[in-house]
Amino acid sequence: MPEEKIVSPAVIRRLPRYYRYLGELIAEGITRVSSKELSERMKVTASQIRQDLNCFGGFGQQGYGYSVENLYNEIAKIMGIDGGRTMIIIGAGNLGRALAGYDKFGKRGFTLKAIFDNNPEVVGKEINGYTVKDADGIEDFVKENNIDVGVITIPKSGAQAVADRLISAGIKGIWNFSHFEISVPDSVVLENMHMSDSLMTLSCKISRAIKD
Amino acid sequence: MPEEKIVSPAVIRRLPRYYRYLGELIAEGITRVSSKELSERMKVTASQIRQDLNCFGGFGQQGYGYSVENLYNEIAKIMGIDGGRTMIIIGAGNLGRALAGYDKFGKRGFTLKAIFDNNPEVVGKEINGYTVKDADGIEDFVKENNIDVGVITIPKSGAQAVADRLISAGIKGIWNFSHFEISVPDSVVLENMHMSDSLMTLSCKISRAIKD
Repeated sequence: MPEEKIVSPAVIRRLPRYYRYLGELIAEGITRVSSKELSERMKVTASQIRQDLNCFGGFGQQGYGYSVENLYNEIAKIMGIDGGRTMIIIGAGNLGRALAGYDKFGKRGFTLKAIFDNNPEVVGKEINGYTVKDADGIEDFVKENNIDVGVITIPKSGAQAVADRLISAGIKGIWNFSHFEISVPDSVVLENMHMSDSLMTLSCKISRAIKD
Repeated sequence: MPEEKIVSPAVIRRLPRYYRYLGELIAEGITRVSSKELSERMKVTASQIRQDLNCFGGFGQQGYGYSVENLYNEIAKIMGIDGGRTMIIIGAGNLGRALAGYDKFGKRGFTLKAIFDNNPEVVGKEINGYTVKDADGIEDFVKENNIDVGVITIPKSGAQAVADRLISAGIKGIWNFSHFEISVPDSVVLENMHMSDSLMTLSCKISRAIKD
């Protein structure tokens, strides 16, 4: 029953990386891995790995290591990416279009259900098989289709207002690409894509020639 | 001389967040802040903040706290975002177009110099004031214009080949948006935008209803 344990946000944040590296091992045909081997590949200490995976009851066996596929599937379950989540994109600009064509949604357990925009010139246009809907209909669509996640790809000025509308319609999570620090109530999950932070990290690494 | 200290990648990774929160304080007209106040806003412990900022010699004064603007400017210097870095985008698809219109580059010390693509139908088209150049010219352009950073927004199949060409031309850093784990030599800095990780984190937070 791994779902019942309390897991720190720091561990949660590392799980996607574990998942990614385990996916690589599967692609390479590797069936078992020790925490030491995984640690060398991921550049994390082996004790960190053992500690992290112990949060979920641990899936390793002394002398055998971890079964790559087992661990991969268990982490998928823990992250809930084996489930059928639904999402909508708000903002049919370049970023919204890029995301509409993003082939990993399905693999991560998400199905894109609709794209919305408030620009009359964009509404009705087709993007990747989706006809862009009028933003006026966001609340009704979220309620009627029980949408889990709203992806916000509009400019920062309108971001909070759209978030508030999604929240009032009962959204569970917001994936925020706008450069605005959206506020959400405790009942709603927020995940920011801070491109600007990534750019500053890059700058910093170049300045200091730091590898990680 | 903060540049001479060795700073851990974990601290480096937190600097953009400090910078962002300090920017908010400046926008609110706040001129000084204690580590306790900053800690409440950022949801990090005050001792963590003091420890992080001490890495750079510390800018706080007992009983006064930190001068917001000083700290903001010092962190900018440490991250090297006060400098004039140059970048090019490789891939004029939706994501490349979205980035070409991204207004924060300048504020983060980066100037976009050109956009490249290998699709004859796209080469020569105008995007946000840039005429898309033929990808054949990447190496020459990087060398002649002493380009610092290459932004890779092409599909994963071509990502490593383009990275290798940028590296051979003397690029200092790569900002990778492709869903491919690019390999770079020690002399080149790599920063990945792992959208997929962010999506999985979102999923995980919803599954476990974890806030951070």
